[in-house]
Amino acid sequence: MSEKCDFGLIGLAVMGENLALNVESRGNRIAVYNRSTDKVDRLMEGRAKGKNFVGCHSIEELVGSLKKPRLVMTLVKAGEAVDDLIEQLLPHMEPGDVIIDGGNEHYTNTERRTKYVESKGLLYVGAGVSGGEEGALKGPSLMPGGSPAAWPLIKPIFQAISAKVGPNDDIPCCEWVGPRGAGHYVKMVHNGIEYGDMQLICEAYQILKEVGGLSNDELYDVFEDWNNGDLQSYLIEITRDIFSAKDDQPDGQGYLVDQILDVAGAKGTGKWMSQLALDLGVPSTLVTTAVYARGLSAVKEARQRASKVLQGPQTGDNPEFAAGVSKLAGDKKAFVEAVRKALYASKICSYAQGFVQLQAASEEHDWGLNYGDCALLWRGGCIIRAKFLDRIKEAFDEQPKLENLLLYPFFKNIIDESQAAWRAVIIAATQLGVPTPAFSAALGYYDSYRRERLPANLLQAQRDYFGAHTYKRVDREGTFHSEWLELRKQPSN
Amino acid sequence: MSEKCDFGLIGLAVMGENLALNVESRGNRIAVYNRSTDKVDRLMEGRAKGKNFVGCHSIEELVGSLKKPRLVMTLVKAGEAVDDLIEQLLPHMEPGDVIIDGGNEHYTNTERRTKYVESKGLLYVGAGVSGGEEGALKGPSLMPGGSPAAWPLIKPIFQAISAKVGPNDDIPCCEWVGPRGAGHYVKMVHNGIEYGDMQLICEAYQILKEVGGLSNDELYDVFEDWNNGDLQSYLIEITRDIFSAKDDQPDGQGYLVDQILDVAGAKGTGKWMSQLALDLGVPSTLVTTAVYARGLSAVKEARQRASKVLQGPQTGDNPEFAAGVSKLAGDKKAFVEAVRKALYASKICSYAQGFVQLQAASEEHDWGLNYGDCALLWRGGCIIRAKFLDRIKEAFDEQPKLENLLLYPFFKNIIDESQAAWRAVIIAATQLGVPTPAFSAALGYYDSYRRERLPANLLQAQRDYFGAHTYKRVDREGTFHSEWLELRKQPSN
Repeated sequence: MSEKCDFGLIGLAVMGENLALNVESRGNRIAVYNRSTDKVDRLMEGRAKGKNFVGCHSIEELVGSLKKPRLVMTLVKAGEAVDDLIEQLLPHMEPGDVIIDGGNEHYTNTERRTKYVESKGLLYVGAGVSGGEEGALKGPSLMPGGSPAAWPLIKPIFQAISAKVGPNDDIPCCEWVGPRGAGHYVKMVHNGIEYGDMQLICEAYQILKEVGGLSNDELYDVFEDWNNGDLQSYLIEITRDIFSAKDDQPDGQGYLVDQILDVAGAKGTGKWMSQLALDLGVPSTLVTTAVYARGLSAVKEARQRASKVLQGPQTGDNPEFAAGVSKLAGDKKAFVEAVRKALYASKICSYAQGFVQLQAASEEHDWGLNYGDCALLWRGGCIIRAKFLDRIKEAFDEQPKLENLLLYPFFKNIIDESQAAWRAVIIAATQLGVPTPAFSAALGYYDSYRRERLPANLLQAQRDYFGAHTYKRVDREGTFHSEWLELRKQPSN
Repeated sequence: MSEKCDFGLIGLAVMGENLALNVESRGNRIAVYNRSTDKVDRLMEGRAKGKNFVGCHSIEELVGSLKKPRLVMTLVKAGEAVDDLIEQLLPHMEPGDVIIDGGNEHYTNTERRTKYVESKGLLYVGAGVSGGEEGALKGPSLMPGGSPAAWPLIKPIFQAISAKVGPNDDIPCCEWVGPRGAGHYVKMVHNGIEYGDMQLICEAYQILKEVGGLSNDELYDVFEDWNNGDLQSYLIEITRDIFSAKDDQPDGQGYLVDQILDVAGAKGTGKWMSQLALDLGVPSTLVTTAVYARGLSAVKEARQRASKVLQGPQTGDNPEFAAGVSKLAGDKKAFVEAVRKALYASKICSYAQGFVQLQAASEEHDWGLNYGDCALLWRGGCIIRAKFLDRIKEAFDEQPKLENLLLYPFFKNIIDESQAAWRAVIIAATQLGVPTPAFSAALGYYDSYRRERLPANLLQAQRDYFGAHTYKRVDREGTFHSEWLELRKQPSN
């Protein structure tokens, strides 16, 4: 115990344990603590055995075992537990030491805690950590923000343990994000984009299965193809894998995916991103649609009852469109390619919205975010990792003030090439009664954003009519109110 | 000044002034006060002249001029101003007196204030007031909630000044909503539904104008027809009027609506309803889509730039569907009727969502809301007033625990009759690049809600794969986790 440790970690659930092993594996001596100390003992006797670990049974012991300035990372439940831990840590730490929260915390808490811990002379970091269990062990995406003076202190370890990308696998997916809550905000947007990606994949799955009639084997092949092309990403890859997994119950038959209940859980970051988008007034429609879709999945019993009452479209409805749908779905290869294009175009809209929200938040909080860096952080290690993010990084490196990814030539060209198929897929699903809320929200965003004129002129007229809310005009400056009751034609009845 | 007043009102902006005149016109003596006291003087010398008004220059004077138990209503900006006023009122009032907030307050503030004012021995009411300037003067919809003991005290005046409906125009659009913040919550949902209605009307307008090629004169006739049928409502009626209003600028030509800038404002209640729906986990997709659509309207300059870069659909895209669209739009009368059905079906989904949110909120806060009453309150006086609400009242009177309006035969039948047209309109708009975010969100809700099986099974598989979040199965009880890496087929490359 005499040799001091490089890093301290509190909270030994699976993420914490794996992250500790990752830190140790890069040549660091690490001290670990958990409130239920039997977890510490089990780790020391198990996966940490023979490694450069110090198991601690109290916070005091953990802090005492660290080199100065001390680096202590907490990986506990977001919210009060973090505040409690900070209060327990502060008496044992001293000015210049660093407390790092690696949980999925709401950025407002991290804003508050940074100021509080700094007021005590210490440094604070709120670090987004993405990549699940495997990422934590082998190399997560890390999004640290908080006290800028903490960055040089944590940088060597953070960049060492993070995922690496680039032709030589030497570019770390870890950069300093910005002050106070910036790191946790970027992590939240990462998670919100993940919600969108997952919902879009689910819609593609349902369309391919129900409209195209694809089997799980065929779906495997489709996702394998897609993963070898522009859509290459971790989520497409694991979706491919899922379609190959056979039921793992002793008496199971067929494919596991078909046996899974269609009720989606959620941990809350998608909801936070939606609520904050609404506060900022930016239209992050994809993440919100995905959150609502999970909400609809959750009322399984209500849906079962409704399915016995509510009708879908009837054969013979809209025969002109039905003929077009049959033709589209009849050529399986062309149909799969149309769905791929719909997914790709929708995904671009989703990322465009995510970066617009980051821009608005950065401006509001004066974070000075570097959007190219954000794309780089997500390039490896995390759940939304994808080749595609290289292009986003390029876009922002080239045009740091790019106002919307849709305007960048690379993405604009993809939408141009994809939009006929994108529309055709939504039309087919609409005709057949297959829900495509996220595909449709994405197209609605695209078709609204590219319009100089929206029908909000009528809406402003209504608001001025009933509430004297006033309006502006297209042809002159100023604010106007009209006496609509006097202007209107007297109705004939 | 010796005769005491029946009612006191603080805050003489246009709503407050009109409400005061309304109260006085029903045979009440009313005391009024405003922080800028010149407003009091102007009212006394103007519209209140010769009427049963007492103009007060201080809060103490206002309170002193009232009969006991005193009834004081505030109509000021929501938020801190209300807290400040309560603090100013309390020293002059006594147990049993009633403070009423008639602003658009966030229900959480009203929950808090009810408990606070009750702790001082007084009674508190948060009352939703809808109907704009005209409603305030002639008869608003009133949604009071708070201290139950306050209801008998305010009921005579509240029901007297409210709008009336029914065959004999004698059913007041004012009932006790529930404890604490229930009244303000119901008002917020009213406003959120109003957002949905307005967005749906705007989408119908854009489709009729751009796909159907209708002129403002033709739009007037369409909305006049619609207002004589099932869609009869205040918002349809004023929309009709708007299409007849000529530009009121001295040098103006043509129709006013075409000169109004397409940038929609918002006061925040739609945002609140969306954020609270997300907290409750209920899919209120229509209000959120409407809020986001206003957000997209607000970035007019960005849209102008984007409109020069981003393409819409090209002639020749999806020729099968294009032919169907031409046929649909070619018969103007049939096309208008299809749009009417799309609007009506979407509107039903919007109200269904609003009531689901009310149910979830009532359960969470133990408010014991009566949903038939809510429909009745909105039947007259307010912005969303419509014949249609009689049917909602009937539905909940008949089935107080009706879980979704879509399941009620009257509404189910309308959707059955409307859905082919609803789908055809969305298909046409999708093909032509006209955004229909709210029509599409409504259909997406309908098509999801009526499905026993959604693709969330894949989503749960993904979450279990990357995060060990576990899943449930369709064929047996329990919670499961699978070792996906072991179950998957080894990919060929």
